[in-house]
Formats: sequence, C-alpha cells, structure tokens
Amino acid sequence: MPYQRIVLAVDLTDESIKVANKAAAMCKAFSGQLVIIHVIESLNYAYGGDVPIDVSDIQEQLQTTAQQRMEVLVDQLDIPVESTIVTQGGIESEIHRVAEENNADLIVVGSHGRHGLALLLGSTANGVLHGAPCDVLAVRVHKSEA
Amino acid sequence: MPYQRIVLAVDLTDESIKVANKAAAMCKAFSGQLVIIHVIESLNYAYGGDVPIDVSDIQEQLQTTAQQRMEVLVDQLDIPVESTIVTQGGIESEIHRVAEENNADLIVVGSHGRHGLALLLGSTANGVLHGAPCDVLAVRVHKSEA
Repeated sequence: MPYQRIVLAVDLTDESIKVANKAAAMCKAFSGQLVIIHVIESLNYAYGGDVPIDVSDIQEQLQTTAQQRMEVLVDQLDIPVESTIVTQGGIESEIHRVAEENNADLIVVGSHGRHGLALLLGSTANGVLHGAPCDVLAVRVHKSEA
Repeated sequence: MPYQRIVLAVDLTDESIKVANKAAAMCKAFSGQLVIIHVIESLNYAYGGDVPIDVSDIQEQLQTTAQQRMEVLVDQLDIPVESTIVTQGGIESEIHRVAEENNADLIVVGSHGRHGLALLLGSTANGVLHGAPCDVLAVRVHKSEA
C-alpha cells in the first residue's frame, strides 16, 4: 500500500471539493489517513514585509473565514479526516512542513485553479513539486464557467 | 473510481521500476489499465534542428535499446500492461499526446531523477504538469548512491 499518509492542500475555493474527492478516493483505496491543510499567505510574506498598515485584523478575519470553509469542506467528504490545519505563511514551505511533520507519503494539490480567495493553488502545484518530501498528485481543476 | 486509464512515462533508468510500481499500485487499487511510454528526445529536437551529422543510426540504436529496456521493465511488473510505446520527439508534448490519445485520467511520472540515459525525467515532471490533459502523479525518485 503505497499511500498511507496523505496531506491534501486546498485553497478553499469551490473547486476544492473536486480535489478533496480525489484525495478521499486515494485514502479509501489505500486505507490511508487524511490531513487537510489550508495556507493563508501572510500579507507580510506576500509583500516582502513592506505593508504600511496593520494587517492583523485582516489576517484574523481570513483565518476565521478559512476555518468555516474548511468545516464545510470536511462535511462534504465521505471519509473521516484525521486533522485539519489552517496556517499562515509561505504556501509551498508550509505545505512541505506539514507533509514532513506528518510523515506524508503523498501530497494532493489542485493544479490551475487560478481564481478565488487568493492566488493560492495555481502555479502552486509546481512550487509544491519542487522540494516536496514525498510524491505529489496534482489534480487538474478547470476554471469554473462563472 | 477516479483513475481508470493511467499513462506511465518512464526514462528507463534504474529508477523507473520504483515509479512503475507506484503506477501499478494505482492500477490495482482502481482497476485501471496501464500504458507505458518512453520518449527518446530526438537530437534534432534537442539541438534545434542544427545537427551537422546524420543521426539516424544513433536514433535507431537508441530506439532498439529503449525497446529492450522497456521489455525488462514490463517483465518486472506484477500487473498486465495494456501497451508500451517508445516514441521520439519532445518529451512533454509526446507524453501529453499519448495521454490524450488514450483518454488518460492520470499521468504518472518520476520527479528529480536527473541522471541516466538522458536528462529525461528530472524537471520534466514540471513540464508534464503544464498543459497536461489530466491529473499528474509525480513520484519522487532519489538519486542512486552510485
């Protein structure tokens, strides 16, 4: 059984359920366990620390919204989820860190989902691939028609 | 069952069996069918058509060697293989073409295997990701100790 510990990285847009369902199918097929992570790219990180306003309120609000969306996502899955993580920082580095800490043997990530909350999981799939501690499954998501 | 038609791209180095075994495990888990492709990067393609010698003999020899290595690889797998393809051209474009022609729902490719016959499947995983018609599983291969 090659994939026992699966880390699913989601941007929590509408497309995330599609990616999550693939991860869930992998978990079922290989009797694996699922950890779901969402990374809020910290504004300081995104803008090189040069943010002229206090962004802590915004970050807190992003965190709350993300937690709520994460719960909605988990409720839609037909498998139990071991844990969910909402964290802030650099997207690729946080995903790699969580994968390492969880001894993941597979990271599942959406590919080409470029709209939504942030520019989270677009070319991120490529970034995740570089330096990943394990295999990476890039699930193709198409832009929604809206 | 998300993955029914799996295209495995291999560089036919010693590491290929590791990648192939992951693809085989996916086939078994999802009752999928496996097509294996190896792309010989055509010398004309690699050097922009500006090759001053006749390379057809070399290409033919590469083709023969690749066919033999492909047979060895297939013999090592514990699942039946639907078909094997040894082709010449651009690596990413050939992999995408074969995936499309076979209605693949998953491409399996090695990641970071940078030594060997050619520079086949190193950063190729990234190249395969871009413009892939389906999901991509990048299997991490470590450089051999030798």
